[in-house]
Amino acid sequence: MLGQVVDTNSVRAAEYLFSLGLSIQKKYCVQDRQEEIIKVLAQASLDSDVILISGGLGPTRDDITKEALAAFLAVPLVYSDRCELHVKQYLEKRGISMNEIQKVQCYIPENAVLLENPLGTALGIFIEHGGKVYCAMPGVPYEMDFILQNSLSEHLGWLGRQGGLLHESILIGGMGETAIAEIIEPLLTDLPEAIKLAYLPSIGTVTLRLTGDEKLGVDLKENIKHYMERIKTALDKNVLADSSLPLALILGRRLKALGLTLSTAESCTGGLISHRISSHSGSSDYFLGGVVSYSNLMKEKVLSVPEQTIEERGVVSEETVKMMLLGACSVSGSDIAIASTGIAGPGGGTEENPVGTIWIAVGNSKQMRVKKLQLKSDRTRNIEAATNQSFLLALEHLQYLQ
Amino acid sequence: MLGQVVDTNSVRAAEYLFSLGLSIQKKYCVQDRQEEIIKVLAQASLDSDVILISGGLGPTRDDITKEALAAFLAVPLVYSDRCELHVKQYLEKRGISMNEIQKVQCYIPENAVLLENPLGTALGIFIEHGGKVYCAMPGVPYEMDFILQNSLSEHLGWLGRQGGLLHESILIGGMGETAIAEIIEPLLTDLPEAIKLAYLPSIGTVTLRLTGDEKLGVDLKENIKHYMERIKTALDKNVLADSSLPLALILGRRLKALGLTLSTAESCTGGLISHRISSHSGSSDYFLGGVVSYSNLMKEKVLSVPEQTIEERGVVSEETVKMMLLGACSVSGSDIAIASTGIAGPGGGTEENPVGTIWIAVGNSKQMRVKKLQLKSDRTRNIEAATNQSFLLALEHLQYLQ
Repeated sequence: MLGQVVDTNSVRAAEYLFSLGLSIQKKYCVQDRQEEIIKVLAQASLDSDVILISGGLGPTRDDITKEALAAFLAVPLVYSDRCELHVKQYLEKRGISMNEIQKVQCYIPENAVLLENPLGTALGIFIEHGGKVYCAMPGVPYEMDFILQNSLSEHLGWLGRQGGLLHESILIGGMGETAIAEIIEPLLTDLPEAIKLAYLPSIGTVTLRLTGDEKLGVDLKENIKHYMERIKTALDKNVLADSSLPLALILGRRLKALGLTLSTAESCTGGLISHRISSHSGSSDYFLGGVVSYSNLMKEKVLSVPEQTIEERGVVSEETVKMMLLGACSVSGSDIAIASTGIAGPGGGTEENPVGTIWIAVGNSKQMRVKKLQLKSDRTRNIEAATNQSFLLALEHLQYLQ
Repeated sequence: MLGQVVDTNSVRAAEYLFSLGLSIQKKYCVQDRQEEIIKVLAQASLDSDVILISGGLGPTRDDITKEALAAFLAVPLVYSDRCELHVKQYLEKRGISMNEIQKVQCYIPENAVLLENPLGTALGIFIEHGGKVYCAMPGVPYEMDFILQNSLSEHLGWLGRQGGLLHESILIGGMGETAIAEIIEPLLTDLPEAIKLAYLPSIGTVTLRLTGDEKLGVDLKENIKHYMERIKTALDKNVLADSSLPLALILGRRLKALGLTLSTAESCTGGLISHRISSHSGSSDYFLGGVVSYSNLMKEKVLSVPEQTIEERGVVSEETVKMMLLGACSVSGSDIAIASTGIAGPGGGTEENPVGTIWIAVGNSKQMRVKKLQLKSDRTRNIEAATNQSFLLALEHLQYLQ
């Protein structure tokens, strides 16, 4: 509520509910004040059958979810021996003994069923009341995740049979939202009311998503498939993937299918290209490594960029990015490489190379693609955009993208 | 609402409102359906004076915010020539001509004031109605940001004089939430009702935040300062920073103050350490670069890790991480280096080195700190944790953390 924490929990919870075929009505984010939590519980229970709550189960003074839930449902809080045992055992394994602060955590609403959480001291709380389901989970993301995926499922599994929302997504590269709309909207004039099209733009890509509620349309699954095929045919080579996958993963799969290895030589992107590639499991099959050559010395010593090239052409130049790319191929022994050099900002801009001037290159000594970007955003976004553009250029190089 | 997109917009909006001294009452996340948007607008206007809306101003069929807002306020939508001019000029600069689809974007609620947005086709919408302020902004994060920081401020600037919420944060490293609570809670038994303490745990760190509403307490600012000092004295060397700063930035500032340079040698962290460091502007003052040595060949060839060390001790070993660190220092000429090698998972684990076994090292040939981590999470989180732990180890090495 103060702009300091990004909420990823509600995304995981939505993903989970969606996988059960449930349609998410609303998300509320509320202050740690009992009367506010109660108000939101009242609103949520008006239009929803299942209410998931995240956060506020810990031992510290800002943890008031259980009190608020008990007050809302008008049930007392009772001391739970099972909670105490769990906290004790959890702490014992770590060589810590239970203290008074943690005893606060052992009070639960009288009618609550406890949900296992081996990853932390707070157990999940599951309550059926007045035909509604309330489930409170810890706010620590991996603890909430565990409860969603394991402990909660046995209580909500029956909902999976209800059907509900269907969706299909595709990822588009190299085209903006409006350019896509110009091509596909004329093809969707007969799209049934029950199917919604969403455009989800990201840096360098747009995800198109068709969704529909099974209850509202006949043959909805077939219809979504039918219209998605129509969109895919029209956008042809700009369709990067059949779902909203990260570009680095699409590139990785493509490299693996072609039996090619990759390395990187990064200056202004500072390791983000390499991080994105290696964040996918199995990437060691095709990713050999990279060099973050922030200093000129690293460029010369490790990537063998001639001192002369940097002096005469400049460190932000077509020649330098090409030499960096060749250096990466040679030092790693990879089939192809990705290289970047430029000025991410906010400082370092010159008249010739203003902030946002970034050269990217993909290929090897036999064949190479080079592109000059002129970005106009802040440092974070420029680094992000150059990284995504380098993946798009690599997909183009592998003739996967038009 | 489907678990596919993480909302960062509401965080930026909260940050902005907070900077004006406003207290955020609630955040709502709602389906792209007119009746739902209207319901939420009605609820929000009950307990708030300023209602910020993000998304749904684009030209495509899922963009219905303006229709919903007009319906809620019972004002007609009118065609705006100024909107048309903006869209035309924006597209012309990019060599595109306006089409029918974009004309939809030019309808605005009759009583709306337009807010400049040079970064996209959708202008912001600002409406004062019934003593409340409604502001609709595009969902594209940097466009919303621009409007918040520039175009909206001239209309909401007067609110800044109202006072409101105050807060102070500190970042704690090397201690868990409960360990912190055990030390500080006994010192806070007399904390005034008007001041709230929040524990915000992250991977390897905890942010402690004191907040209070100026209207609810006298001398609130002095009181928050007083209690924060008490907490800081008690936690001593575990206090990493006077606000919730990224660890890489704290490390960078420390390096700069000491006049030291840094390089990296990353295996399992795959470039994330390097990315985190270089994502801060000015990092080229102390960061020389790094090597992502994913393959053994890269470790041997670039970082001069002896083939024998890898063969006899294994690639995930104390000896290898030490040799990697020395290699990074030597190839970059840096004063100190950070190195990592391990198994992030999910594959690659052995009996001796199960998934999550990660060695990290900080220092140089004269003095070195090495730590073995035994992480138990998924790939993403293991990479993240190893990166944060390496920053904490580096701060410890620089005698900044106990």
